[in-house]
Amino acid sequence: MNWKARLLKLNGLMPEMDDAGALAWSTLADAAEGAELVFLGLDDGKACFAAVPERGDASPRMANPQLWSLMATLSADDLALYGGARSIVDWHARHRFCAACGGDTKIGKGGWQRACTVCGTEHFPRTDPVTIMLVEYDDGSGAKLLLGRGLGWPERAYSALAGFVEPGESIEEAVAREVLEESGIVAKEVHYIASQPWPFPSQLMVGCHAVAENDEITLDTTELADARWFTRAEVTAALNGDENAPMNTPPRQAIASHLLKWWIEKGA
Amino acid sequence: MNWKARLLKLNGLMPEMDDAGALAWSTLADAAEGAELVFLGLDDGKACFAAVPERGDASPRMANPQLWSLMATLSADDLALYGGARSIVDWHARHRFCAACGGDTKIGKGGWQRACTVCGTEHFPRTDPVTIMLVEYDDGSGAKLLLGRGLGWPERAYSALAGFVEPGESIEEAVAREVLEESGIVAKEVHYIASQPWPFPSQLMVGCHAVAENDEITLDTTELADARWFTRAEVTAALNGDENAPMNTPPRQAIASHLLKWWIEKGA
Repeated sequence: MNWKARLLKLNGLMPEMDDAGALAWSTLADAAEGAELVFLGLDDGKACFAAVPERGDASPRMANPQLWSLMATLSADDLALYGGARSIVDWHARHRFCAACGGDTKIGKGGWQRACTVCGTEHFPRTDPVTIMLVEYDDGSGAKLLLGRGLGWPERAYSALAGFVEPGESIEEAVAREVLEESGIVAKEVHYIASQPWPFPSQLMVGCHAVAENDEITLDTTELADARWFTRAEVTAALNGDENAPMNTPPRQAIASHLLKWWIEKGA
Repeated sequence: MNWKARLLKLNGLMPEMDDAGALAWSTLADAAEGAELVFLGLDDGKACFAAVPERGDASPRMANPQLWSLMATLSADDLALYGGARSIVDWHARHRFCAACGGDTKIGKGGWQRACTVCGTEHFPRTDPVTIMLVEYDDGSGAKLLLGRGLGWPERAYSALAGFVEPGESIEEAVAREVLEESGIVAKEVHYIASQPWPFPSQLMVGCHAVAENDEITLDTTELADARWFTRAEVTAALNGDENAPMNTPPRQAIASHLLKWWIEKGA
C-alpha cells in the first residue's frame, strides 16, 4: 500500500504558487478538520487531492483579473490541473443541498458525486457545453470574419460569438441558432475544429467554423455591444499585437485565441 | 398581438399521440391550475409550451421499452421537439430546490431558468456532454472496431464505448481516458464526427473516431460486461439485420447507429 498523497494549496478558489512559479502542494495533514476532499488523480505515483472551500464562486462567469494574470504564468499541465480542480471543488461548494428535496448532501465517490442524506438522490458535477464559432463570409472580394464585443467589454475587445448548447440541440444546431439570434446571420456548413475546458465555472468550449449566407448584421443588443466583420489583414494585425489593429485579441489561454490563429493559418 | 398558443400533451413525461401518429397538442386552457410552463419556441406562428409534471424521471438513464418503441414511430421533427421538451420539463421537476441553500426555487425566463426564492441564486438546465467513440485497429490484416456490451445488456447487444466528459477535460482527452479506463486500449488521432442530443435525461452525445495503438483488451468489469473487436463484415451483417451476425446494432434513433453506418461507408 502506498500512502503518498498531496493536497493542492488553494486560498479559497485561488491557486497558491511555489517559489518556482508552479502550483504549490502540501500534505493531507494540512486539510482543515472535516474538510471535504476531492480525489484529482495520481501524479508521479502520488494521490492528489483538493479540499472543498467554504464558499464557491458567487459570479463564476466574471473574470478575475488577478487570477487571469496568474493563470497566464502557469505551465499547460498546471493550468489543466488547476482548471479541473477549481471546477469541481467550486461545484461542491455551490451544491451542498439537494435540488430534488432541499435536504443536506454529502460528498461521495472520491469527490465525483454528492448524495442526498434525506432522499438519496445522487448529484454529479456538471460540465456545460458552449459553442464558440468563427463565422466567415466571402462574396469574392476576400474572406471576412464575424466577431462580437460583449456587453461591458473594453472598446477594442472582440472575440468569436459563443453560447450554451441547450437541451434538445446538436452542436451544429446550437451554432446556427446562436449566430442567428445574436447577429441575424444565417450560418451553414458548420464544422467542428477543437475543444477546450474552461473553469469559470465548468464549460466545455466547442470551437466550430461556419460559412455565412449573408453579411448584413442585425445586432441583438441584449447580448452584444457590437458585432462586425474583420478582414484577414485586420485579424493578423491584432494577433501580432499591432497597436493600429482595429481590435484586441482574446487572451492566449482562451480557445478563441487558438481559433483566430487557426483561421489565419488555414488560409482561403 | 398574436395569442395563438398550444400546449404539448404529456402524460407525466410520456408523449401523447394524435390519430395521425404525431405528437398531440391542446391549448393553454388545458394546463393544470398553477402549472409551471416552459416556452418551447414558435412553430408555424404559434407559441408552443409544455407543462412541468409533478414528478421527474427517477432513473433517467434507464430505457423505457414502451417509450422507445413509441419514439421509433415519430418523425424527425417530432422526435427533436419531444426530446428537447422532455429534457427541460424533467429538469424542472427534479430541481424544485436550491442546491446552494436548500430554499424553494421558482421557474423563470419562460422556463429556461429557476431562481431561488430565498438566496436568489439562478439555476440553469443542464446539458451533459458524453463522448461516444469508434475505436479502430488495423495491423495490416483489415480494420476492426472496438465495441462493448454494458452491464445488464442482452447477450448480443454491442455498441460504441461512451462516457461523460469530466470537468477539466477536452473532448479528445475524454475519449482517450474513457477508452483506456474501460478497455485498456490506447486511443490516438481522435476526430469529431457528429453530435446528437439525447433526452435521458439531457445528454449531448459527441461522436468521435480514434485509432487504437494496441488490440489487447483489459476489460473494466465494473463498467462493461464485455468488449471485443468486430470486422467490417460483422458490422455490415449486423446493420443488415443478418440473424447470423455476432451482434445486434443499437436502435436507429441512437447516434451509435449512425456512427456504425458512417464507419462502414467511409471504407478503409
